[in-house]
Amino acid sequence: MENKLYFQSLVSNEIEAVESRMREQAKYHHDDLQAALDILIDSGGKRIRPNITLLIGKMFGGNIDSLITLSAAIELLHTATLVHDDLIDGSLLRRGIPTLNSKWTPGATVLTGDFLFAKAANLAAETNSIPVMKLFSNTLATIVNGEIVQMFSSHCNSDLDQYYKRIYSKTASLFETSSLAAGIISNIDEEKKEFIRLYGYELGIAFQIIDDILDFTSNQTQLGKPVGGDLRQGLITLPAILFFEEYPNDPNVKEFISQNCLPSNSFINPLIENIRNSNVIQKSLDFAKLHTNNSISALLNLPDSQYRDALEQMANYVTERKI
Amino acid sequence: MENKLYFQSLVSNEIEAVESRMREQAKYHHDDLQAALDILIDSGGKRIRPNITLLIGKMFGGNIDSLITLSAAIELLHTATLVHDDLIDGSLLRRGIPTLNSKWTPGATVLTGDFLFAKAANLAAETNSIPVMKLFSNTLATIVNGEIVQMFSSHCNSDLDQYYKRIYSKTASLFETSSLAAGIISNIDEEKKEFIRLYGYELGIAFQIIDDILDFTSNQTQLGKPVGGDLRQGLITLPAILFFEEYPNDPNVKEFISQNCLPSNSFINPLIENIRNSNVIQKSLDFAKLHTNNSISALLNLPDSQYRDALEQMANYVTERKI
Repeated sequence: MENKLYFQSLVSNEIEAVESRMREQAKYHHDDLQAALDILIDSGGKRIRPNITLLIGKMFGGNIDSLITLSAAIELLHTATLVHDDLIDGSLLRRGIPTLNSKWTPGATVLTGDFLFAKAANLAAETNSIPVMKLFSNTLATIVNGEIVQMFSSHCNSDLDQYYKRIYSKTASLFETSSLAAGIISNIDEEKKEFIRLYGYELGIAFQIIDDILDFTSNQTQLGKPVGGDLRQGLITLPAILFFEEYPNDPNVKEFISQNCLPSNSFINPLIENIRNSNVIQKSLDFAKLHTNNSISALLNLPDSQYRDALEQMANYVTERKI
Repeated sequence: MENKLYFQSLVSNEIEAVESRMREQAKYHHDDLQAALDILIDSGGKRIRPNITLLIGKMFGGNIDSLITLSAAIELLHTATLVHDDLIDGSLLRRGIPTLNSKWTPGATVLTGDFLFAKAANLAAETNSIPVMKLFSNTLATIVNGEIVQMFSSHCNSDLDQYYKRIYSKTASLFETSSLAAGIISNIDEEKKEFIRLYGYELGIAFQIIDDILDFTSNQTQLGKPVGGDLRQGLITLPAILFFEEYPNDPNVKEFISQNCLPSNSFINPLIENIRNSNVIQKSLDFAKLHTNNSISALLNLPDSQYRDALEQMANYVTERKI
């Protein structure tokens, strides 16, 4: 068992309760659903989103049961989108663990994702907050629309503005909702809600940029998938955007773009290696740090408390993490 | 343009508004989504569910805007499940029109279904009713769980009790929700809600039994797919259940069961033909009529009105329809 960080220790009991609430959702349903859900929850990662919701909710004295229900709803929604994503991308591993679609038929995988959507919506309704429900369903629409735009867009898109839109849909929208919904549950005023929303938004952007950096700088064991996986799929993230901008005459870049970013192995490995070893990694980190600092600045408009300290620590942790 | 029946004429303006609300959902999203949604709505069938919601809501003086929003939510949820079903079953036609999955990749089809789920949930939230939201997400869980049970169950299941459970999940649950949610929106008392719920439940059971009969008695042009399609997939519906029970020694039945209901063409066509021409069709119709009568009995506990007459007419129409 790894040591808990301060921000985790403040809500560790609640996180356990969130996981229990998630597991309960398959009760009275088909046995294989329970088995699938248990595996998905066991491989659930760092639980950053419920940590955000619970720390913000506790900071403002929100009802703990509602915050746990909300956290479970958001985490289950996230899990549902991952189940469908892995199916669509044909991913066989996530966090080094075999994906559902690597073992089940496409049909069973689609339905499991649908079931998790249904249960996530059900938990969101159990917060008894109409604004939370609306935020929740809007966020799902944002996430899915982002994936559709990405799927139908041309490859080779290295536009920074569109990159930001994409990572908002993919990641920051749900971070934002994890924050804002906690504020709504805790009945805080509009000004505070805006600071809280901004904290989640900026942290989500930073989180995804770091993820995109780690996709280049980490190793296959830690990633649980090949290094440079995004680029191998023709998806151009921040380090590659900056590299293409700075080194347009790099022969591997020219080759990659001339082949419509559908890489062949002859130049994709040296290209990934060049990006790894270039200054664009540090530049990308600077982008992430900027957003982390923005998230902390938003936070510092709120009253000082141990929870605010924890949220600040979490923001720094997100930027400094190595996995 | 076909002539409208009485029950349709009472809510035809509202049905148009429901379709507009549905179409609006793809606004500000990817263009291909709008095109897909337009096709799905144009091939939308008889709109039985929104007719139920609107007639019940108008009977009790519910807010028309909320009823239109609710109807659009339910119909969009239904559409989303059809999109995923057709993908899972590999169906190329629905109501004679090419399915989304016949033209798009599995990934794009999964995401379109997900998008429709999100928008359906969003519309449900716009009714501003927590009980409606809960009912809505519970119904989605029921539908999806039913499909998962069916997928993981052994073939050759000709148990009547399990057939009823299956058609509840598949069809009657959403009919029930179309009724009950209209009652909730219209703030009727608990006793009336129970009659309304029962009307929807019984009508949904009758509707699916008729669908299962038509799968045998109709023709390929009207069905938009081969006759006996369920049995060809190893799915045993009411006419087949009754036929197997009554004629266990029919050589085609014996052959079908001995091959674990995975049919080969040599005996599936004569088996379908035998079922078509046997007394089990009338027996199945008697089952459907029983449920239609139950739904009308529930209705007759409510005050007399033109809307009640229309709901009664609709129940009879469902049982007597030929398509």
